[in-house]
Amino acid sequence: MWVQRQITLQERPRGFHLVTSEIERELPELGELRVGVAHVFMQHTSASLTLNENASPDVRRDFAAWFDRAVPDGADYYAHTLEGPDDMPAHIKSSLTGASLLLPVREGRLALGTWQGIYLCEHRDRGGSRRVLVTVWGE
Amino acid sequence: MWVQRQITLQERPRGFHLVTSEIERELPELGELRVGVAHVFMQHTSASLTLNENASPDVRRDFAAWFDRAVPDGADYYAHTLEGPDDMPAHIKSSLTGASLLLPVREGRLALGTWQGIYLCEHRDRGGSRRVLVTVWGE
Amino acid sequence: MWVQRQITLQERPRGFHLVTSEIERELPELGELRVGVAHVFMQHTSASLTLNENASPDVRRDFAAWFDRAVPDGADYYAHTLEGPDDMPAHIKSSLTGASLLLPVREGRLALGTWQGIYLCEHRDRGGSRRVLVTVWGE
Repeated sequence: MWVQRQITLQERPRGFHLVTSEIERELPELGELRVGVAHVFMQHTSASLTLNENASPDVRRDFAAWFDRAVPDGADYYAHTLEGPDDMPAHIKSSLTGASLLLPVREGRLALGTWQGIYLCEHRDRGGSRRVLVTVWGE
Repeated sequence: MWVQRQITLQERPRGFHLVTSEIERELPELGELRVGVAHVFMQHTSASLTLNENASPDVRRDFAAWFDRAVPDGADYYAHTLEGPDDMPAHIKSSLTGASLLLPVREGRLALGTWQGIYLCEHRDRGGSRRVLVTVWGE
Repeated sequence: MWVQRQITLQERPRGFHLVTSEIERELPELGELRVGVAHVFMQHTSASLTLNENASPDVRRDFAAWFDRAVPDGADYYAHTLEGPDDMPAHIKSSLTGASLLLPVREGRLALGTWQGIYLCEHRDRGGSRRVLVTVWGE
């Protein structure tokens, strides 16, 4: 069984945001799979996806604090500056977490660990809504 | 053919550890595949997986040296501190390497490059054993 | 349908290089797939792959500028120095972007976002040509 569907994640402010349930509710077909995988693919280069702790909002705040220090806005060695001081760091941050996730499916559900959730990593000040292409297959 | 199996990796000290053979010996079904892939998925948010050099222990030591400098324990800008000074950096480091690997299978074996091995990246001082969900499929 | 093929990417200088079309032209079978995925796997530990902006060469230059600052050549805390000052940072950079990409396929083509391209991340001064194992499957 193959399912492929484009999902639009609503616009969010710059930062890290839990979107596990927003993605799961767009994938009712997961319930038909005994075993399989779900590929969640961000079709942008200034936002990205990662898995991390799904409980404390402080973790997501600290992600932003670390990434903003590690990849500063408007660094003087950026040549690509036309799209604003948050653009080039957004590209670099996107490649550090990666554009996609591959998640195991088991007995009709995403088989995440107890504390794992899907983060939308919005690296732009005004990124707009984000398109994600999800592909699910299995048996 | 689909195989899905939970593997428990024994507790290891904080640092980077080669676990290729520990994972391969739990997957005898690889031998039946002409072509396929193996998905190795860490079900935690303070340990992670990566592929890197499988020969020199110095490489794994230098990984720890770099990551500990890049994502310091107990930085004064962390808000999430209740679980200890090594917890928040463990979450960030986990997202930098990523929670999972997708590995090609060819003629019954993982088709890694000559120098590639699977690293368990243990980012906590006392992380305990780690659960990994492996999904293998192909033909 | 499963296709697995080794592709050799020609030698390139240290830096970030767009290789989308070089990879696509080695995969004529993509055209037969209605839905599927393509796994592009670097069989080395000092070069890597990522997705990022496919238009401005400045973005790729800034990637190199950032990575070279974040993971410096010849840092005094590296123990693994026998293969040269660019070797240990090449390993670390490779794990930061990751060795492989999983790309959705839709109606016979890679379903990348408008601005997404595949970067070969060459982290060595003289890395030589690079072997990539591509696995494509779908229906």
